[in-house]
Amino acid sequence: MQASWIAVDWGTSNLRAWAMGQTGIEAHATNDKGMGQLKPDQFEAALLEVIAPWLTARTTVLACGMVGARQGWVEARYRAVPCPPTDPAALTRVTTNDPRLDVRIAPGLSQDRPADVMRGEETQLAGALALHPGFDGVFCLPGTHSKWVHVSAGEVVSFQTYMTGEMFSLLSTQSVLRHSLTAEGWDDAAFDDGLSDALSRPDRIAARLFSLRAEGLLHAMTAPQARARLSGLLIGIELAGAKPYWLGQSVKLIGAQNLSALYARALGLQGLQAETEDATACTLAGLSALYAKLKD
Amino acid sequence: MQASWIAVDWGTSNLRAWAMGQTGIEAHATNDKGMGQLKPDQFEAALLEVIAPWLTARTTVLACGMVGARQGWVEARYRAVPCPPTDPAALTRVTTNDPRLDVRIAPGLSQDRPADVMRGEETQLAGALALHPGFDGVFCLPGTHSKWVHVSAGEVVSFQTYMTGEMFSLLSTQSVLRHSLTAEGWDDAAFDDGLSDALSRPDRIAARLFSLRAEGLLHAMTAPQARARLSGLLIGIELAGAKPYWLGQSVKLIGAQNLSALYARALGLQGLQAETEDATACTLAGLSALYAKLKD
Repeated sequence: MQASWIAVDWGTSNLRAWAMGQTGIEAHATNDKGMGQLKPDQFEAALLEVIAPWLTARTTVLACGMVGARQGWVEARYRAVPCPPTDPAALTRVTTNDPRLDVRIAPGLSQDRPADVMRGEETQLAGALALHPGFDGVFCLPGTHSKWVHVSAGEVVSFQTYMTGEMFSLLSTQSVLRHSLTAEGWDDAAFDDGLSDALSRPDRIAARLFSLRAEGLLHAMTAPQARARLSGLLIGIELAGAKPYWLGQSVKLIGAQNLSALYARALGLQGLQAETEDATACTLAGLSALYAKLKD
Repeated sequence: MQASWIAVDWGTSNLRAWAMGQTGIEAHATNDKGMGQLKPDQFEAALLEVIAPWLTARTTVLACGMVGARQGWVEARYRAVPCPPTDPAALTRVTTNDPRLDVRIAPGLSQDRPADVMRGEETQLAGALALHPGFDGVFCLPGTHSKWVHVSAGEVVSFQTYMTGEMFSLLSTQSVLRHSLTAEGWDDAAFDDGLSDALSRPDRIAARLFSLRAEGLLHAMTAPQARARLSGLLIGIELAGAKPYWLGQSVKLIGAQNLSALYARALGLQGLQAETEDATACTLAGLSALYAKLKD
């Protein structure tokens, strides 16, 4: 099997690659050698470990994600918004030892004021726009660092990042709240309560967090209730901040299925019907659109 | 040297003991055997390791803090507010193997709605009231879990806990922001900016956090500036939530010197002059007041 080109999504914690051919995806492989654990001279070997079986002739490898960060393989410098999410002329070429490799990294986007950055999400946005040409409105990309993105006329106009996923992870596993939560379990009513609480009184968010612990000690709040309520509080304070993005707008979610479903529920409670796009499908559509323009 | 009685502040991460005699404090000793690392049958040995040199006859040991938690030595069940911060009749006795020990643990306080708990701070409050008899107003006890406490006529009327210190620690050492901060360094203007930002727009707190990272990447915000601004944002969102506690009130701070100075600065910017009490002095005054009543 020989790939026409190779799509790579290379994040902080893992590397995912797809061999692309005449009929679309021909093979998929992954490893856990994320950018977070590699020094610059280790990236090429980590990549070959995954894609070598697909290489005979010189092959274009299009990569997006943290691989292009300052601490990554080669820095792919941010492009400043407003601009289209990706640009084939702005790819950063990487010099490799293996002559079969023609590696190019997609840069992230930056926003001057309020200062913000994204890396990887720009390719998902390009993919979502390729799948929905002419879409004007707002994308929400929930995750470790959730992004809200205003897109108009094919350009990213502005965006804002929320540390919601990382906060949930830290609070539920590293803070005193870990005693009151479980890794699994859920309660929709507790999620809805937390959400509405944070949205209506964002100034009280800091007090609401410790009360999860106290509710468990005093009123036998269950661990699934506490977990769902924490999630509701954190997504609620995100929605409170992002209100100028979503209020009265057409919103599309790009993310993992379970998390997108939570955001869809949260937005639904505000009277907003958000459609959901699969994140991986958007990444692949974004890299495919870049490759098509590169070959034009 | 023989202690008349022994004061113990036994928290999650360490044990501090004072030999108390006719002239006040006669000796002080400490170890790192906090409640967090001990099983119930290990507490007596950990205590003796510190206080054995002071024991000849049977001696009263008054302890406060997490030693009385459900996961501690013996559970000292919460007393429900409104009530005086401590009560000699509510001490929990501990059965020990060593006949020289007469150990009693001060219970914490609980509040039904909004659910909240404290353990250790009640003794500091009792001490502050012993040092300032008749004080009516608000105490703020900044720390890992900051407390705001309304005290009137010698009773704790209500209180509220904020995870400010724990959030600062998690965000500055475990989150993506750790790349933008340093363990030391400070910038007053950045603290003031963060504080005012969070107080005036608490709904935007979640977006402001990631912007510390982006400001470092895009606008060369320095690590000391980022650290001070994070502190300002977190204390600001605490002050936003605690506004009903401090607005127009007489406020006393009980805490470590550096942290209390930050809170005093933050409250000063809201036009409020808060006095500061030393936390350890308050703990000792609180345990001393308990012992005095016990001997009456």
